[in-house]
Amino acid sequence: MTFDFAKRRRAVLGELRRRGLDCLLVVNPANWYYLTGFTGEAGALVLSSAGSTLITDGRFTIQAGEEAPGIRVELQRGSLFGYTGEFLQRRGFRRVGFDPRHLTIEQWNALRRRRGGKWKGIVAGGIVEGLRMRKDAAELAVMRKAAILASEVMEHAVAQLRPGVRESEIAAEIEFQMRRRGASGASFETIVASGARSALPHARPTAKKLRKNELVVLDLGAILAHYCSDMTRTVYLGRAPRRVREWYAAVQEAEQAGIAAVEAGVACGAVDEAARSVLRKHKLEGYFVHSTGHGLGLEVHEDPRVARGQEIRLEAGTAITIEPGVYVEGAGGIRIEDDVVAGARGREVLTRVRRDLIEI
Amino acid sequence: MTFDFAKRRRAVLGELRRRGLDCLLVVNPANWYYLTGFTGEAGALVLSSAGSTLITDGRFTIQAGEEAPGIRVELQRGSLFGYTGEFLQRRGFRRVGFDPRHLTIEQWNALRRRRGGKWKGIVAGGIVEGLRMRKDAAELAVMRKAAILASEVMEHAVAQLRPGVRESEIAAEIEFQMRRRGASGASFETIVASGARSALPHARPTAKKLRKNELVVLDLGAILAHYCSDMTRTVYLGRAPRRVREWYAAVQEAEQAGIAAVEAGVACGAVDEAARSVLRKHKLEGYFVHSTGHGLGLEVHEDPRVARGQEIRLEAGTAITIEPGVYVEGAGGIRIEDDVVAGARGREVLTRVRRDLIEI
Repeated sequence: MTFDFAKRRRAVLGELRRRGLDCLLVVNPANWYYLTGFTGEAGALVLSSAGSTLITDGRFTIQAGEEAPGIRVELQRGSLFGYTGEFLQRRGFRRVGFDPRHLTIEQWNALRRRRGGKWKGIVAGGIVEGLRMRKDAAELAVMRKAAILASEVMEHAVAQLRPGVRESEIAAEIEFQMRRRGASGASFETIVASGARSALPHARPTAKKLRKNELVVLDLGAILAHYCSDMTRTVYLGRAPRRVREWYAAVQEAEQAGIAAVEAGVACGAVDEAARSVLRKHKLEGYFVHSTGHGLGLEVHEDPRVARGQEIRLEAGTAITIEPGVYVEGAGGIRIEDDVVAGARGREVLTRVRRDLIEI
Repeated sequence: MTFDFAKRRRAVLGELRRRGLDCLLVVNPANWYYLTGFTGEAGALVLSSAGSTLITDGRFTIQAGEEAPGIRVELQRGSLFGYTGEFLQRRGFRRVGFDPRHLTIEQWNALRRRRGGKWKGIVAGGIVEGLRMRKDAAELAVMRKAAILASEVMEHAVAQLRPGVRESEIAAEIEFQMRRRGASGASFETIVASGARSALPHARPTAKKLRKNELVVLDLGAILAHYCSDMTRTVYLGRAPRRVREWYAAVQEAEQAGIAAVEAGVACGAVDEAARSVLRKHKLEGYFVHSTGHGLGLEVHEDPRVARGQEIRLEAGTAITIEPGVYVEGAGGIRIEDDVVAGARGREVLTRVRRDLIEI
């Protein structure tokens, strides 16, 4: 796929003009990739209508030249942020937009140390993230593939589950299968959590062996051509007791309600409430210890948050996860998660694995 | 292995007393793991002589209770940093130490928003990182295993290299072998860079097939029981031409000189210079585009930096990488990297793979 990086930069420049900013300082790797194609891990991008410059160190200058046509690459001398502060001054910028989410206090102090009183930092958060919320056709084409890849790996992993296998062995197999299918890696540390450990929403895989009559939560995601997928299925090893079946049915109903609420124009808080209210009805809301989902794209957690009270609205092309769960300390946990894209009307579910209770 | 988390906390509390601080705010996951054993990804730890509290969200409260004995776990209400600011006020702290490297401007603003004029943030950077620079016997025992694991995987990977194999296949095999040998994952995205791509110090693996008569750089690291390893070898597919042999011999000599300089009390800048001066002697310094190494432990890049002019001194137990390289645009690159621990006298090299030129 080819992305139109120059078009994205033009959209940012338009926003800078509207806000009366001379330039925007971009220090988040996902943001600079989105705007230039540069995949390096260190640098600072300064976008302005007079041309854009990527400041980076000697490990990345050749690579940046190859990956980011139309961007001037400048080798930093001394520290990145000290040098960038000097650069902003040298170029005569006055009003420099920055995102307070991405700059540490130390970086900010280094930038200002060499400021010489000339330029002023103006809070301009979320400009690039706002653009990233609207995935275009080329991005959605990649995200579909990343989600299908994750779905295939999930089906493969479920088929490996049996008493005696270790959580860590399943995790290793999952990540190997991702790579084999073309992923550049996992989008987060794969979760394989069995028995009482399934009640920990973010359990790391351990050497624990799976046993008969327990729940197993598998949460995995792949990165394909820079875009992330993220999905969860919960399996019961054996014939599930009534209590587990009831929990599972409630989570499944909540997930379905969350998915059905996804559409452009809907507030993220309303999507959360659609899922949450189902668990409330089943008197399980107290066991649902996190929010319903999160944005997905170049980062596995990006805007918007799909959480209580979030007023931000889905747009056509916003990709989010829907992932309600119940977690009962000592007993176990159940989570079902899919990747969903809001459409102008309705939605598209990207992940493709059956959602009803799997008993092995 | 068991780590004495309480002893580490006592060391921090002693430092707080010396600096007249009421508490220390710890928001870096490696730091809170070091001090408590908590492996979750979100939270804020407040250390004080009146007891320590970990504030986190519902995904991590059960897990924190299990992993961090002796630490009070508090469920945040609302945003993490808004709640933490309220907590600091409620507990009546006045002088709150924080590390400007780890807090973003937005987090700082959220903390202060609810401050109510009572507590004051005092810059107290690097206290935990300073402790982490001195690995104790239990940590070194784990790091030895992580380095040997990486060494075995490196030998396995070198044996897979042949014309026609893709960079991405080698990378997948490397990460699978790490997991199979007990690693929880890779400590960074594995680098397999062949031909002209080997001149990019941080190249990501691509679908490119290895060809006869080119250089291949393999840079890999495993995480074992939370501790990282990191090593690089460069292989020639075929019989290396004279120019490549000369470059390789210079890099090998530089690496040996860097390793030989490692000892407690030596400034990191002197270690860098020991390696760099060898490349200068061979008129290759201009092709050495990064610094000689970095600290290694719970994070794959941690204090100290082993770079030009760094005055910080190695201590007994400081683990660093030594990784000089030469990168010639269009031709290829060579890097050799090992993990080394400074001793009171001399040093211990943790990684165990032959360093002379491998021709396949």
